[in-house]
Amino acid sequence: MHFLKKFKQALRETNSHLVVGLDTDITKVPQFLQTAVNPIAEFNSLVVEATKEFTCGYKLNVAFYERALERGLSAIQSTLAVIPQNQITIADAKRGDIENTTELYAQTFLDEFGFDSITVQPYMGQDSARPFLRRKNKYVWILALTSNYGANDFQFLKIGKQPLWEVVVEKAVSWNDQKIGFVMGANHTRELEKITKNLPETPLLIPGIGAQKGSLEKTINSLNHSLFVINQSRSIIYSAPKAQNAVEFKAIVGEAAQKARDEINKLIDSKKK
Amino acid sequence: MHFLKKFKQALRETNSHLVVGLDTDITKVPQFLQTAVNPIAEFNSLVVEATKEFTCGYKLNVAFYERALERGLSAIQSTLAVIPQNQITIADAKRGDIENTTELYAQTFLDEFGFDSITVQPYMGQDSARPFLRRKNKYVWILALTSNYGANDFQFLKIGKQPLWEVVVEKAVSWNDQKIGFVMGANHTRELEKITKNLPETPLLIPGIGAQKGSLEKTINSLNHSLFVINQSRSIIYSAPKAQNAVEFKAIVGEAAQKARDEINKLIDSKKK
Repeated sequence: MHFLKKFKQALRETNSHLVVGLDTDITKVPQFLQTAVNPIAEFNSLVVEATKEFTCGYKLNVAFYERALERGLSAIQSTLAVIPQNQITIADAKRGDIENTTELYAQTFLDEFGFDSITVQPYMGQDSARPFLRRKNKYVWILALTSNYGANDFQFLKIGKQPLWEVVVEKAVSWNDQKIGFVMGANHTRELEKITKNLPETPLLIPGIGAQKGSLEKTINSLNHSLFVINQSRSIIYSAPKAQNAVEFKAIVGEAAQKARDEINKLIDSKKK
Repeated sequence: MHFLKKFKQALRETNSHLVVGLDTDITKVPQFLQTAVNPIAEFNSLVVEATKEFTCGYKLNVAFYERALERGLSAIQSTLAVIPQNQITIADAKRGDIENTTELYAQTFLDEFGFDSITVQPYMGQDSARPFLRRKNKYVWILALTSNYGANDFQFLKIGKQPLWEVVVEKAVSWNDQKIGFVMGANHTRELEKITKNLPETPLLIPGIGAQKGSLEKTINSLNHSLFVINQSRSIIYSAPKAQNAVEFKAIVGEAAQKARDEINKLIDSKKK
């Protein structure tokens, strides 16, 4: 199924704009899981069980899995296997290289692991996206305006009258307007307002809420369309550091996800009034 | 040892500006190696044995190793173990993320695997470099002007009077002028001339010769300093596709590396006259 179709269906069926970020740091996994053969895989399995009722999908930041070497590889595979088929999966790999090399990243993340979509660095241009776009039912989230302070180094530089991030968006849309969405930090409300107005059919992946301290209300209020997902990681997955067992862990983490999902929906509903 | 010192020493001691790119695709490994437990590791081991006399160092494009999953991880480790201690190693990972996440990449590539240096995407700004820079003897190669056709998408965009790639270079140098060098494609001779004139002490990693068809003579003639390495991969490592055994393989591949090293040195010497 074409990703855009899957995405819209997921938003509808799950009634959720929440994507849980499985940025699983083995040093932050609760004590009771530390003796597992693969603590990261176990942790993720419990988080997915606890939260899948409340999510539209999951985003795995690949850095955390690379850090765990073989067990990280294994955890990616086992985690993807337990995520419900109708939810979206995002490889937050922020990859980008020349075409032949990017083709290998596409083989690894999209073909081998089976992620629906992947985040991509725009700097090297079209070659960094094309191999991913060649896959029929896959999707690319290009970094446009990121949530970190380093966004100020280059992303606001003016090309004529337009900031670089906007030029990136326009250029990327010209490559493929059905299979490319953008990563836009939650804190950039003015720009979110602009991009959702200019591109009412273009999905957005929005990180930067939760531990990164974006304001959810301001963010939701800035959006002019509803084809977006809000990523939250630490505030959900690490909400039960002292849990003594799986039951306790899932209760707390599930509640955190439910709360996050409901908060987003409530703010969306208030807008409509 | 501070990387800059190691780099200058390596250039001197090896009398080579050649870096061999170990972009090892398992489907291109000769028949006689296909039955090895880890063909990529074996192939690399033979390439290093055959070429180390002629190289300043080695660059591993991480995409090839990720594609090989567990065996790729293992091959990175075994390959680094056989590279001579005085030569430089480059993780061509083109990584970049928010600070906390980039820290994990630094732990993986610089601490765990022990690469001397890593290639980095500039788009997300300083956060994508800082964790790598925190490691005392490590080094960052920031993508400035890349060799692929997609470089034309954004890297030449004008910020006022300056192209983006130049703004990236100036900004990065302001973060740290001792631990940051740049990736500049061999085909961009006019820009190579400019950057080596403006920054006579700043190392460059130059890909795009060989299979990517840059002209070595034009490239060498454009350089105003000698703190550079030229990366060549496919023209060396895949020069012996029909080799029947290790001895034959190493003879051919070694000769290809020697030829490449000598060609570069000859062109440098001709300049001096």
